[in-house]
Amino acid sequence: MADEKILGVLKQKSLLVDEQLKELLPDPQQFSIPEVRELYESAWDYNLRGGKRLRPALCLLSCEAFGGKQEDALNTAAALELLQNFFLIHDDIEDESELRRGKPCLHLTHGVGFAINSGDYLYNCVWNSLLQNKKIIGATKTLAVMREFVEQFDATAEGQAIEIGLVRDNKWELTEDDYFEMVKRKTANYTVTRPLRVGAIIAGANKKQVDSFNKLGEKLGIAFQIQDDLLNLVAEEKAYGKEIAGDLYEGKRTLVLIRLLSKLKGEEKQNVLSSMGKKRGEKTKQEMDAVLQLMHEKGAIDYAKKVSLKHAQEARELFNKKLSFLPDSEAKQNISELIDFIVNRNY
Amino acid sequence: MADEKILGVLKQKSLLVDEQLKELLPDPQQFSIPEVRELYESAWDYNLRGGKRLRPALCLLSCEAFGGKQEDALNTAAALELLQNFFLIHDDIEDESELRRGKPCLHLTHGVGFAINSGDYLYNCVWNSLLQNKKIIGATKTLAVMREFVEQFDATAEGQAIEIGLVRDNKWELTEDDYFEMVKRKTANYTVTRPLRVGAIIAGANKKQVDSFNKLGEKLGIAFQIQDDLLNLVAEEKAYGKEIAGDLYEGKRTLVLIRLLSKLKGEEKQNVLSSMGKKRGEKTKQEMDAVLQLMHEKGAIDYAKKVSLKHAQEARELFNKKLSFLPDSEAKQNISELIDFIVNRNY
Repeated sequence: MADEKILGVLKQKSLLVDEQLKELLPDPQQFSIPEVRELYESAWDYNLRGGKRLRPALCLLSCEAFGGKQEDALNTAAALELLQNFFLIHDDIEDESELRRGKPCLHLTHGVGFAINSGDYLYNCVWNSLLQNKKIIGATKTLAVMREFVEQFDATAEGQAIEIGLVRDNKWELTEDDYFEMVKRKTANYTVTRPLRVGAIIAGANKKQVDSFNKLGEKLGIAFQIQDDLLNLVAEEKAYGKEIAGDLYEGKRTLVLIRLLSKLKGEEKQNVLSSMGKKRGEKTKQEMDAVLQLMHEKGAIDYAKKVSLKHAQEARELFNKKLSFLPDSEAKQNISELIDFIVNRNY
Repeated sequence: MADEKILGVLKQKSLLVDEQLKELLPDPQQFSIPEVRELYESAWDYNLRGGKRLRPALCLLSCEAFGGKQEDALNTAAALELLQNFFLIHDDIEDESELRRGKPCLHLTHGVGFAINSGDYLYNCVWNSLLQNKKIIGATKTLAVMREFVEQFDATAEGQAIEIGLVRDNKWELTEDDYFEMVKRKTANYTVTRPLRVGAIIAGANKKQVDSFNKLGEKLGIAFQIQDDLLNLVAEEKAYGKEIAGDLYEGKRTLVLIRLLSKLKGEEKQNVLSSMGKKRGEKTKQEMDAVLQLMHEKGAIDYAKKVSLKHAQEARELFNKKLSFLPDSEAKQNISELIDFIVNRNY
């Protein structure tokens, strides 16, 4: 289980990001047109609804670990959180999800059109926040950070395209490598690699130093996604904040499922494929419980947990090896502890 | 009818923008994962599917009219086109539209999830294109242009929020001023005002000169939107490229409809409200034809045409007055002719 100390660090960074977001997002009360006020109210509510704030924390800690000032990275940290929230709103529509951070998804409470537009607005806020950097870190670093954001979202869009296409076209013949390629793009890049990179860029790190995070970010991002997939299957809904086993209803291609399918044959495999291939609304709880049961029985859940830990272990080794040039610091220690948190978290 | 000369200018600018887009968008064939290739293929297809290219043309012409080089504005012109295409993809989902530029909408051919993700990807391309500016116009102008893009999309998101909210909540009690406030935000800003502003910024115009486009852009943008609404009702589908009277099925709040409702009372008004208030799928052709018929009979279409022309006329007067400091040039003359085109176009 994650220890209290690292949760305290996340909480502390989270409060800083909240303050930054409150400065950036317009006060809804200043708008007289009710529909405009609703847009800003939902942005306010959604961004301050909580969440782990892992990405901003990695950015702030990386900046500090490279000798930079945390304040210099706050606009960028806020932009990472806005990016994540924009992405979650659209991802929840794409996946037909129901719960997010313990509340019904925005498209269910406000309508799909509203949610698409709200996500678009938040992505615009990402760029607004990044533009504020100019006064603080100068034009050159501002543009370098923006380049990272453009590249990271290209990767995310590719990863999403893979996931959406597989579900839409009812494709199940995936290898573990296919899964890793998808996850590198849809998760690892913007969850770990880029937050660490932009923090370092703001602190003035050189290209080689910044690149030292790439392989580490990939490994840790894969470990993060597998843990996310596992939590979806076995977490307690209250701590988790999303519907349990929602991924099965959404037909997500997870490592657990790929492993399960590789262990099945004949009629048993056909039954699982037939259950999983149905549209969300046509899947029964009984069917999904049966698939989940098989995931336990066939060792697919244990297997995925092992692969997650293995990737985290590789990330730790890369951290020790590639970041050895960084002097010891509280921030460096906290990044190290986040590596454990990512695979041991229960939410 | 728009004359051949200005159509030639639009065509010529359009070709330049196509070339720019082809340099920016990745070649789909270089990607081996089929779902990733599909993302880039659709981006390629959608952006090179044509369209008036009015926004890039205004940007390029404004840059030239202020003594700048057209080449300096090409990244920005391409970004305006990408922004428009991102916006159309999402807008078509929000409105449940069916046709766009003579082809079925992306969410109908590729699925809603795919279309949301494709739009997001194109908005990312907007920023990618704007980042390319650094090498050509330097960091300061690059960031100034980005600021314009952030502000313009804030306005667009507000305008969309109004339109989406009104339809979702079945609200019909709109004044003409409500309509103008919506249109200023959802259309005028990114269609006319900002393209003209960014062109001038790239050419090195000062703040007062850049601001001279604001009121003009508002007026001309309103004229543009009313003409768009009118074309939706009375155009020939082949030239128009969208389904005729689609706005009635989508329940769009147009000046024509607002005018019609203001001219009706009692049972006649209730009948129209009842027809218009149904969900898209429940509206019959007979009902919509009856509403359209009433729009003709009650003079609502003629009225809207007059209001559009009045706004274009005001834009022309503002152009003559506020832009009189600009020396005569081919580019200035072309902007002037585009003012006429915007209210006389048939597509």
